Amino acid sequence: MKHTRTILAGIMAAAVSTAALAEDVKVIGVSIPAATHGWAGGMNFHAQQTVERLEEVYPQLDFVLATASDPGKQVNDIEDMMATRNISALVVLPFESDPLTPPVQAVSESGAWVTVVDRGLSVPGIEDLYVAGDNSGFGRVSGEYMVSKMQDGGDIVVFRGIPTTIDNERVDAFSEAIKGSGINVLDMQHGNWNRDDSFNVMQDFLSKYDKIDAVWASDDDMAIGVLAAIEAAGRDDVQFVLGGAGMKEMIKRTADGDEMIPANVTYPPSMIATAIELTAVGLTSNAPVSGTFVIGSVLVTPENAMDFYYPDSPF
Amino acid sequence: MKHTRTILAGIMAAAVSTAALAEDVKVIGVSIPAATHGWAGGMNFHAQQTVERLEEVYPQLDFVLATASDPGKQVNDIEDMMATRNISALVVLPFESDPLTPPVQAVSESGAWVTVVDRGLSVPGIEDLYVAGDNSGFGRVSGEYMVSKMQDGGDIVVFRGIPTTIDNERVDAFSEAIKGSGINVLDMQHGNWNRDDSFNVMQDFLSKYDKIDAVWASDDDMAIGVLAAIEAAGRDDVQFVLGGAGMKEMIKRTADGDEMIPANVTYPPSMIATAIELTAVGLTSNAPVSGTFVIGSVLVTPENAMDFYYPDSPF
Repeated sequence: MKHTRTILAGIMAAAVSTAALAEDVKVIGVSIPAATHGWAGGMNFHAQQTVERLEEVYPQLDFVLATASDPGKQVNDIEDMMATRNISALVVLPFESDPLTPPVQAVSESGAWVTVVDRGLSVPGIEDLYVAGDNSGFGRVSGEYMVSKMQDGGDIVVFRGIPTTIDNERVDAFSEAIKGSGINVLDMQHGNWNRDDSFNVMQDFLSKYDKIDAVWASDDDMAIGVLAAIEAAGRDDVQFVLGGAGMKEMIKRTADGDEMIPANVTYPPSMIATAIELTAVGLTSNAPVSGTFVIGSVLVTPENAMDFYYPDSPF
Repeated sequence: MKHTRTILAGIMAAAVSTAALAEDVKVIGVSIPAATHGWAGGMNFHAQQTVERLEEVYPQLDFVLATASDPGKQVNDIEDMMATRNISALVVLPFESDPLTPPVQAVSESGAWVTVVDRGLSVPGIEDLYVAGDNSGFGRVSGEYMVSKMQDGGDIVVFRGIPTTIDNERVDAFSEAIKGSGINVLDMQHGNWNRDDSFNVMQDFLSKYDKIDAVWASDDDMAIGVLAAIEAAGRDDVQFVLGGAGMKEMIKRTADGDEMIPANVTYPPSMIATAIELTAVGLTSNAPVSGTFVIGSVLVTPENAMDFYYPDSPF
């Protein structure tokens, strides 16, 4: 199904909808990459949930949610929304920056509102609102947690993602946060945000170093690879692994008091929800919502973990 | 009246409210400086409007809006909200940073959500969400407009505000934006965001310079002083004055096609509305709203001016 639309349901929503029929209904298009698992799977889940919620809250808004499995499909989705749905606003998480820039620019030039999420376009200034994650904050909060957890210092290994500016920002902020703390980074390698790569890197680390006190895996997929390598090696020197991004299985382990996974740091796929919510606020109120919203990376501990746990989400 | 509360009104809101009575009602406290005119007056207007709107949209939310005429009163207001209203969240535009920091910190330590607007606190990291204006963007958009309006270059004078980092950020970005454009800054003086000061400064400029093509007044109050000085001097060389912040009288002149006031650049007092809306989204949805939202400064022209015109607001 090309366009997934949720249907207004429930007595309350129906009653409100009737009261508002006289008003103009505005359409918000939401265009995102498809995915059934991982971070993008979580993003799809939260987009769908938010559309359902907002169709209840705002009878004067209608939504068209399109998911694309490649950039070409996403370009078509957006052109379709323009041609057949007369959208007042577009919320887009671009598959890739270059191919998506011209169609999103066309939406903007038509006078519709444009909200871009997470990944920027190739031409600056097209979007009215940019909702982004906080990579420096992600590294800083992770580093501060390690310092608070390892008050007597210790030896750690660090996993980096795919070499990108995102990865640099995270690692630079982490390094800054642990400076002077007594935490010693034994080694730092790229696990490429990938379980298998991280399993292999952690195997190397474990054979190279007799004692590793903790691991900054910096991502939950990498953390899963790291944990598997530790288990395969039968090592009990590693006291804990700090991942990141808030995968539900890891959040659950933190909530349950698993000492190997004592915390998490968010880089939430639900930022798509914030983008859709803000776009709806812009169409229904006087509140200005142009600008840049950097979604904070928040420390998750056993105390607040259930606030970040979405059992129905694939992520 | 210490706490102003709006009453749910209207058949629709009442119907929805009944349906939601079973849910827990959460209270959002809003604490702002009082004002009957100027930017702060506009901020009060938009806070009140937003509370009224959101009490209709979200029956599961209740609001307590307190306006303070001095920092001591604002401290008391916040302590009262904690003691008697059990607030789940506080939206605060601090009168001054230092005296407001301890009571807002106490709110945060109680576990309630804290949204800070426009003016930061003295201790970093207390707030969950910071909603701020974009001073660099304000200067850049103003400069870009001057360049597009004066394609053959020309001589301008520039008004600065009270010497602050805010003012520096604005002027630096403006200077950067006009660099290499053929626009020549004859003079630059502090009008201190004040009509009378700016009247005097403009009188000096007019006596010093025989020909001034345009003025970057950089603020609507300063623009009013500038316009009065031009009129008093009977000068007809000044082609236009660019103010800023979006005072309703100036927005109206732009909308009406007044060639002396062809544009405006927003630094909207309605950012308080965005802060309250986002706080409500945080309490009612899964969307993460922690982080920093920098509200964009937007160019207002005759084409879009009515979108920024609030005839019932004092500003």
